Amino acid sequence: MSRTLPAGLAVTARVPASTANLGPGFDSLGMALGLYDEIEVRTTDSGLTVRVEGEGADDVPWGPSHLVVRAIERGLEAAGVWADGLDVVCRNVIPHSRGLGSSASAVVGGLAAGCGLAAKLDTDLSVDTDRLVQLASEFEGHPDNAAASVLGGIVVSWTETAATAAGDGVEIPEHRRVYRAVRLAAHPSLRPVVLIPEVRSSTTHTRGLLPETVPHADAAFNVSRAALAVVALTERPDLLLPATCDKLHQAQRAPALPLTTAWIARLRAEGIAATVSGAGPTVLALGTSEFPAELRELAAAEGLRVVEPGLAEGVSVD
Amino acid sequence: MSRTLPAGLAVTARVPASTANLGPGFDSLGMALGLYDEIEVRTTDSGLTVRVEGEGADDVPWGPSHLVVRAIERGLEAAGVWADGLDVVCRNVIPHSRGLGSSASAVVGGLAAGCGLAAKLDTDLSVDTDRLVQLASEFEGHPDNAAASVLGGIVVSWTETAATAAGDGVEIPEHRRVYRAVRLAAHPSLRPVVLIPEVRSSTTHTRGLLPETVPHADAAFNVSRAALAVVALTERPDLLLPATCDKLHQAQRAPALPLTTAWIARLRAEGIAATVSGAGPTVLALGTSEFPAELRELAAAEGLRVVEPGLAEGVSVD
Repeated sequence: MSRTLPAGLAVTARVPASTANLGPGFDSLGMALGLYDEIEVRTTDSGLTVRVEGEGADDVPWGPSHLVVRAIERGLEAAGVWADGLDVVCRNVIPHSRGLGSSASAVVGGLAAGCGLAAKLDTDLSVDTDRLVQLASEFEGHPDNAAASVLGGIVVSWTETAATAAGDGVEIPEHRRVYRAVRLAAHPSLRPVVLIPEVRSSTTHTRGLLPETVPHADAAFNVSRAALAVVALTERPDLLLPATCDKLHQAQRAPALPLTTAWIARLRAEGIAATVSGAGPTVLALGTSEFPAELRELAAAEGLRVVEPGLAEGVSVD
Repeated sequence: MSRTLPAGLAVTARVPASTANLGPGFDSLGMALGLYDEIEVRTTDSGLTVRVEGEGADDVPWGPSHLVVRAIERGLEAAGVWADGLDVVCRNVIPHSRGLGSSASAVVGGLAAGCGLAAKLDTDLSVDTDRLVQLASEFEGHPDNAAASVLGGIVVSWTETAATAAGDGVEIPEHRRVYRAVRLAAHPSLRPVVLIPEVRSSTTHTRGLLPETVPHADAAFNVSRAALAVVALTERPDLLLPATCDKLHQAQRAPALPLTTAWIARLRAEGIAATVSGAGPTVLALGTSEFPAELRELAAAEGLRVVEPGLAEGVSVD
């Protein structure tokens, strides 16, 4: 039976944004970026209040269906506790629908806050990061952004099912996906820069642009570049340009993302390893030196906000 | 104009076998294995003699079309020299047509020997490993085995063309492929074991079993596992089992490789990360502990030679 939390417990979760794919690593590679949402949760005797400040304050649906609230409740449930009432304050910085993983961050932040409340009652109720990756990815359907926001840094994530389980001896119920991720030791000189357009993009829409099948040669192409990406991101940033080439999603989505596509071509021609951030429209540029001032100005003139957020640590709870 | 080598120069190239793919890393991941062919080459005043000892002594075509001789000549040409005559002795240990990269080893050994002869004349004529990877891969059409035999250890290899070049600024003639590879720092506890069947397999035949197109989801699956493979092979051998899953070639070739396929399933059920070595029929088993004696005996009873060759350094020339 669940234990009920007393009123007056409070936690604040601080959760980073993330960028996914990094070129060839479709639905697998992710990186936590230093733009943070904060979720403050306090237990009360009854009822639910949610206040949203900052990004999305005007357009996120209210009430118990709010993604953050659903995640908090899932976090409480996972930790084996319940709360009679909650006050929630979301201080949002991560832009929405731009390919910066804001939904995953909301879910990870909510889960971490829910689990964190339980841990305030009893530290034995702590939830580890593997479980957070699993719970958050169940909301998302894939682990790349969620794992980055949980673990921080750069992650390789993957999904196991009964059919594709690690070994025949590993039992996973047919219907259940197991989401896993491992954090890489990012090369210390990596400097991610994001170019964030004004316009929004729907991941659901851009996912629909992906083909059912792809040439075997294109699959093999991305396999080699995704393996290379791990090497480039950890040991050999001089190889970032070939390591960020992709044939599985970027060209397919390009018609829906003309400004993004043009900027990726422009940056790559300058030797900067640029890719679509997640499903776009944000451009991720990975390099080791300062982003050129003239490109920064040109981007600003075309309505792109240029941010150098740095790599982030994973979600933290206070 | 080419310089002609004097008669009486001699080199011996020692070149390791290799295993390719390592599960998800189709045509990209490779590993050098400690089974070595030796190629001894001596310049003479005229003519060509070739003697083959060991594996393939009875069935490798003789004369100037011999793969090793073609590679030696290409190596001389690349180094800008020529020889009026050559005596060649091949001491072959690497089994042929088993998925252990014997053709790539022959090419790499021949190239290295040719280049090595030139360097005996003048050290300025030395050829670096990047060039050897390129020259050897041009023979093979893909760089995975060749790069492993050149660089040693574990490699990530990839192919660039004009269309997929690193950046728009990099000029590569449309028709020309650039083959590249980088060596990983293999985890010191890795212990590759190969189970070598008696029967041979033709790569040309097994390549024909691969489909033209694959589901996008299968491509994404291999992308995530190939990225994970780099992590597992360098830092996290505990993840070798999920890191060696594949959907792009093994199941497709399974009907042609029943013994191989049965053994991979058996080993994976025991928690041993087994994959098809290259195009088969050899089984590669990657682990960190001793290969179980009962499995070794069972394999021998089914006609499989079980060898623990260790990881090898790249080709060397004396």
